Amino acid sequence: MQKNVYFETLGTASLNQLVQNGNYSKIIVLVDENTHEKCLDKFMERTPFTIDGIITIKPGEEHKNITTCNMVWQSLADFGCDRKSLLINLGGGVVTDLGGFTASTFKRGMDFVNVPTTLLSMVDAAIGGKTGIDFGVLKNQIGTITQPKLVLILQTFLETLEKRQFVSGYAEMLKHGLIAKHAHWETLKQKQLEIDADDIEASSQVKVGIVEQDPYEMGVRKKLNFGHTLGHAIESYYLEHLTKPTLLHGEAIAAGMILEGYLSHKVSGLSKVSLDEINKVVSAHFDKIDFEKDEIPIFIDLMKHDKKNTHGNINFVLLREIGNAVIDCKVSEKEIQEAFSYYMDR
Amino acid sequence: MQKNVYFETLGTASLNQLVQNGNYSKIIVLVDENTHEKCLDKFMERTPFTIDGIITIKPGEEHKNITTCNMVWQSLADFGCDRKSLLINLGGGVVTDLGGFTASTFKRGMDFVNVPTTLLSMVDAAIGGKTGIDFGVLKNQIGTITQPKLVLILQTFLETLEKRQFVSGYAEMLKHGLIAKHAHWETLKQKQLEIDADDIEASSQVKVGIVEQDPYEMGVRKKLNFGHTLGHAIESYYLEHLTKPTLLHGEAIAAGMILEGYLSHKVSGLSKVSLDEINKVVSAHFDKIDFEKDEIPIFIDLMKHDKKNTHGNINFVLLREIGNAVIDCKVSEKEIQEAFSYYMDR
Ligand SMILES: NC(=O)c1ccc[n+]([C@@H]2O[C@H](COP(=O)([O-])OP(=O)(O)OC[C@H]3O[C@@H](n4cnc5c(N)ncnc54)[C@H](O)[C@@H]3O)[C@@H](O)[C@H]2O)c1
Ligand SMILES: NC(=O)c1ccc[n+]([C@@H]2O[C@H](COP(=O)([O-])OP(=O)(O)OC[C@H]3O[C@@H](n4cnc5c(N)ncnc54)[C@H](O)[C@@H]3O)[C@@H](O)[C@H]2O)c1
Ligand SMILES: [Zn+2]
Ligand SMILES: [Zn+2]
Repeated sequence: MQKNVYFETLGTASLNQLVQNGNYSKIIVLVDENTHEKCLDKFMERTPFTIDGIITIKPGEEHKNITTCNMVWQSLADFGCDRKSLLINLGGGVVTDLGGFTASTFKRGMDFVNVPTTLLSMVDAAIGGKTGIDFGVLKNQIGTITQPKLVLILQTFLETLEKRQFVSGYAEMLKHGLIAKHAHWETLKQKQLEIDADDIEASSQVKVGIVEQDPYEMGVRKKLNFGHTLGHAIESYYLEHLTKPTLLHGEAIAAGMILEGYLSHKVSGLSKVSLDEINKVVSAHFDKIDFEKDEIPIFIDLMKHDKKNTHGNINFVLLREIGNAVIDCKVSEKEIQEAFSYYMDR
Repeated sequence: MQKNVYFETLGTASLNQLVQNGNYSKIIVLVDENTHEKCLDKFMERTPFTIDGIITIKPGEEHKNITTCNMVWQSLADFGCDRKSLLINLGGGVVTDLGGFTASTFKRGMDFVNVPTTLLSMVDAAIGGKTGIDFGVLKNQIGTITQPKLVLILQTFLETLEKRQFVSGYAEMLKHGLIAKHAHWETLKQKQLEIDADDIEASSQVKVGIVEQDPYEMGVRKKLNFGHTLGHAIESYYLEHLTKPTLLHGEAIAAGMILEGYLSHKVSGLSKVSLDEINKVVSAHFDKIDFEKDEIPIFIDLMKHDKKNTHGNINFVLLREIGNAVIDCKVSEKEIQEAFSYYMDR
C-alpha cells in the first residue's frame, strides 16, 4: 500500500503529477494559523496548479477536536467540494491528523495529501494513514485508518520551526533507530541535531516500511509504540494538569523511551550497556521531567485506558537490543515503579 | 469481501458464533427509542451472550447527525469500550448508518454488526458498508465505507413495523428487480406486498452481489442509484419544506423510478411496454406526488449538489430493459422536464 512517501528537497514534482493525473474537481489547502503564515507562500511558489480554497484552523492540540472538524467539513461543502476533490494538509501533525480525518469522512472519503511542516510530522505523523481527533481528555479517540494519496516531505519548511518543536520530532527519529535500524541510531548518536535530508528520509522510511507490512496494527506496527505506552500516559497527565509545565509529545516520548528502555533491560534482554547508551543519547537533548512518587499510580491508570490496551491489560513494546523491538510484553506494576526510580536517580 | 449477510428466520446462530470467536472486551447494543421498545426484547431472547450496555438514540432522520454521534461516542467511552469491543446496531437505516459511522471511527475502528429491523434496512441500508450521518441539509455528507462484521436479518422484527414504512422498503426491493434480476421483479409483480422470507433474502442478495463486485462504488455499484438521482433531490426538497407532506425515502424513490424509467425509455432503450409495466407496478403501491412546475429547476439544482455527481455533471443510472441497468448516462434538462410531465399526466 504505502509506496507514496516522496522526499523532495527542491520541488513538488510528485504532487504536481498527482494533480495532473487526478482530474480533481477542487483543490483545497488546509493550514493552521502558523503554517498559513510560515509555509503557505513557500508551498504556493512551488506548485503550478490552481488552489480553489484555503481553510485555516487555529493551531495547537486543543483544537484537534470535533468542533474544528465541523468547521472544516462546512468549509469543504461551501467551496463546493465533492468526493472527487483533493485536500492538501499543509502543517504539523495536528493539521495532518485532523485534515486526514475530515477528508476520509467527507462524502465517505475524498483524496488527501499530507505535506508535513514539522520534523515530527515528516518522520511520523504524516505517514501511515492514522487520522484522528481528540475527544474530551482522551487523545485520538475518534479517527480512521486511511492512507493519504501522497506524503510530500520538503525540508525547507523546517527553517521556520522552533528549536523545541524540532527536538521534539527528533525523539521519534531516535525511536525509529531503536526499534528497527541500528545504523540510523548510530548516525543520530554521532550527528546529534545536525541531521540532513537523508537522515529525515531514512527515518521516515523506517515508518513506511513498518506500516507497509501492517497497516491496521495487528502486529508489527505496534513496534512504533516504543516509548509511547508510558509516554502517552505522561503526556495526557501533563495536558490535564495546568499547573504542570507544558510537555511536547516528543519530550514525553523521550522520557518514555528511557523508562521503557529500563523495562527492556529488566524484561526483554536489553543489555545494561545499551540501556546506558540510550539514556545518554536521549538525555543529551531532553531535560529530566520531575515526576512525583504519587503520580505513578495515575500513569498506570491512564495506561489502562489507552486505546492500544484492550481487555484492561497494559502491553509494552520493548527492545531486545538496539534496532530490534518485540511487541506485546507484559510488565508488572512493580517493574514500572522501578523504571521511574531508575529514571529519577540517573 | 461482503460474504456475511446471514438470513435467519428463527435464530441468531451466526451472531452467537461471531461473539464466541470474537473475544470482545465489551458488547454494546445501539437502538433508537422505537426499536428499544419494539425489538430489544425479541433480540435479547434470542442471544445467549451478555450485553454490557445499551445506547438509545432518538428516532428519525433528524437525529442522524454529529450531535447524536457525540453522544454515542461518549457512551462508548463511558462503557469502557476499546477497539476490541463490538457494537450491535439494532434498528432501521438511521441506527445502522449512524451506528456504523460511530463504530468505524471510535478508536479508529471497532467491529460492528447490523441487525436491521425495517424492510428497507434489511434489503438495503444495513448491507454494503456505507455508513454516514447528515450534515446540515445535505444527506449522508459525512461517513465512511466500512463493512459490518455481519448483517443478521430476522424477519420477526417486521411484525411491529408500520405499514407505510414497510411499503417504503418495498420500493428498494422493486429497484433490485429492475436493475439486476428480472425474476425478482416478476415475483414481486405477482405477489405484491405478500412477500416472504425468501423474497427478502433474494432482494438483499442482489445488493450483496453488487457490493461484492465494487465496494467503493467505482462502477457497477452505481446501479443501486436507479431512481435515486431524482429521488434524492425530491426527498431533500420535501425534508426542507415543512409545508410539504412528509415523504419517506422509498416513496421518493418510487417517484424517482417512474421518472427515471421514463428517461430510460427516452435515452437507454427501455421499451414503452416495460415503462408502462414499471409505472403500473409502482403506482399500485405509491400515491402520486403533486409536483409543481416551478419545483423542477430546484430539483435539478439539488442534483448538481448530490455527492454522487462530481464536476457539476448529473449522472443517471438508467435501464436498458427490466433487470438490466446502465450507469453514467447523461440526460438533458429538457428530458428531465418531460419526465415530470409524463409522471404528472399518467
Ligand atoms: N497520525 C499519526 O500516526 C501520528 C503520529 C504521531 C503524532 N501524531 C499527532 O501529531 C500531533 C503533533 O504533531 P506536531 O508536533 O507536528 O504538532 P503541531 O501540528 O501542533 O505543530 C507544532 C506547532 O508548530 C507549528 N508549526 C508547524 N509547522 C511549522 C513551521 N514549518 N514553522 C513554524 N511553525 C510551524 C504549528 O502551528 C504548531 O503550533 C499530535 O496531535 C499527535 O497526536 C500523529
Ligand atoms: N447505508 C446505506 O447504504 C443506505 C441505503 C439506504 C438508506 N439508508 C439510510 O437509511 C435511513 C432510512 O432507513 P429506515 O427507512 O430503516 O429508517 P429509520 O431507521 O428511521 O426507521 C423508520 C422508523 O421505523 C422505526 N422502526 C424501526 N424498526 C422498527 C420495528 N421493527 N418496529 C417498529 N418500528 C420500527 C424507527 O424507529 C423509525 O421511526 C436513511 O437515513 C437513509 O439515508 C442507507
Ligand atoms: Zn509519537
Ligand atoms: Zn434507497
